[in-house]
Amino acid sequence: MEQHNPAIILVSPQMGENIGASARAMANFALTDLKLINPRDGWPNNQPSESAHANAVGAFDIMPPVEVFENTADALKEYHKVYATTARPRDMRKTVMTAQSAVEDMRQHQAQGLKTAILFGGERAGLNNDDIALSDIIISIPVNPEFSSINLAQSVLLVAYEWFQSGDNTLAKHLPVGDSALAKHEELNDMIARLEDELETHNFFRNPDMHPTMMRNIRSIFSRIDMTEQEVRTFHGIISALIGKKKT
Amino acid sequence: MEQHNPAIILVSPQMGENIGASARAMANFALTDLKLINPRDGWPNNQPSESAHANAVGAFDIMPPVEVFENTADALKEYHKVYATTARPRDMRKTVMTAQSAVEDMRQHQAQGLKTAILFGGERAGLNNDDIALSDIIISIPVNPEFSSINLAQSVLLVAYEWFQSGDNTLAKHLPVGDSALAKHEELNDMIARLEDELETHNFFRNPDMHPTMMRNIRSIFSRIDMTEQEVRTFHGIISALIGKKKT
Repeated sequence: MEQHNPAIILVSPQMGENIGASARAMANFALTDLKLINPRDGWPNNQPSESAHANAVGAFDIMPPVEVFENTADALKEYHKVYATTARPRDMRKTVMTAQSAVEDMRQHQAQGLKTAILFGGERAGLNNDDIALSDIIISIPVNPEFSSINLAQSVLLVAYEWFQSGDNTLAKHLPVGDSALAKHEELNDMIARLEDELETHNFFRNPDMHPTMMRNIRSIFSRIDMTEQEVRTFHGIISALIGKKKT
Repeated sequence: MEQHNPAIILVSPQMGENIGASARAMANFALTDLKLINPRDGWPNNQPSESAHANAVGAFDIMPPVEVFENTADALKEYHKVYATTARPRDMRKTVMTAQSAVEDMRQHQAQGLKTAILFGGERAGLNNDDIALSDIIISIPVNPEFSSINLAQSVLLVAYEWFQSGDNTLAKHLPVGDSALAKHEELNDMIARLEDELETHNFFRNPDMHPTMMRNIRSIFSRIDMTEQEVRTFHGIISALIGKKKT
């Protein structure tokens, strides 16, 4: 069975030097799969790419090519479990883990051949609520509350460090998913998108302003379930049944 | 009894930006005692100090003044226990600890009112044998052997992070967070019972023999969510919407 190390996904990174320093931190701890979503200055291009390579001190040479995406959902399609590094969200109900707990969780998924990814927000604003809603688990790094701003590449370093540290303990523990395979994000997102369509059709969102918030809350419920492929099919069946004709 | 956090001591640091980034990393994890031994460009002076302050993003403002020494022995005078971050020395017999073990050792000294310091070598050559000989314990950070060079400030960050982690007993791990109260079993069961009724009405259970198994599977999905009262209400709303009239 093929085993996958976690991917590092930078959402809207601004400075090439932070992309480079993130790559260096990854290479230090044997992570090689870097993806970028909407890098401010594009990728690759001359100025930031130069700065990135200077800060990477050779890390890009031992990594596969960096992939670039236009939005978070596309970047996450192939992953079974997605972790968002961010402060605890106030208005979303998500499982919160320390970096140390999160890497153990990743190792358990890895041992089953499943794919994981870790989202990091850009320098200016971090991850937005929609990015967080697309994630399954929050990684919250405890910091000094009086001086809490951590540099992007430093966050990557800390999580990558914990990942590497945990490498000696690869025993797969039992995951609460049963026999069927964990659904990929694409399957889950398709199901949620269908639910959203049907709710729209059925006047669920009476106040259009509340539509995004309500969908984030609904998404947050499903992202906590670790749904299997079978369970996603079951939910499709539930939706089909509820919108269909009644017994006569 | 006064308790002392570990001091961070940089031996022959070269670049102001690394001194600043080290200060920032310290402040992130509530360390404030920074000492420099023979900084290449002096301290403070204009050029490196500017660069240092840019990279410190305010960390120096919450720290006591940085102390500068001419040699390692002088800088270490007041400490009870000194830790040297370095690769394992080949020709010296020293206790080697991971960062995680070392911070526990520091905490034990701290609890007794003793003072500890952590030595970091400069960018070019790291700690020399004399510096290591003056130390009590080696801190060795396991890294990818194929890409092992860690930046000075990153080493400081990792050790400071471990220090802060070891003192943090307040972060709830693995707990879903949010404002709304966890739903009682009664509320959850009423919601599931209503869903079952509606699914029955809408011909979801085509094969009556499979009805109990399918309901167990559906219940198993919901039981994994730790739903809040608000989320149970949201699901009631979803059911109501899906079985209701479409937009006309």
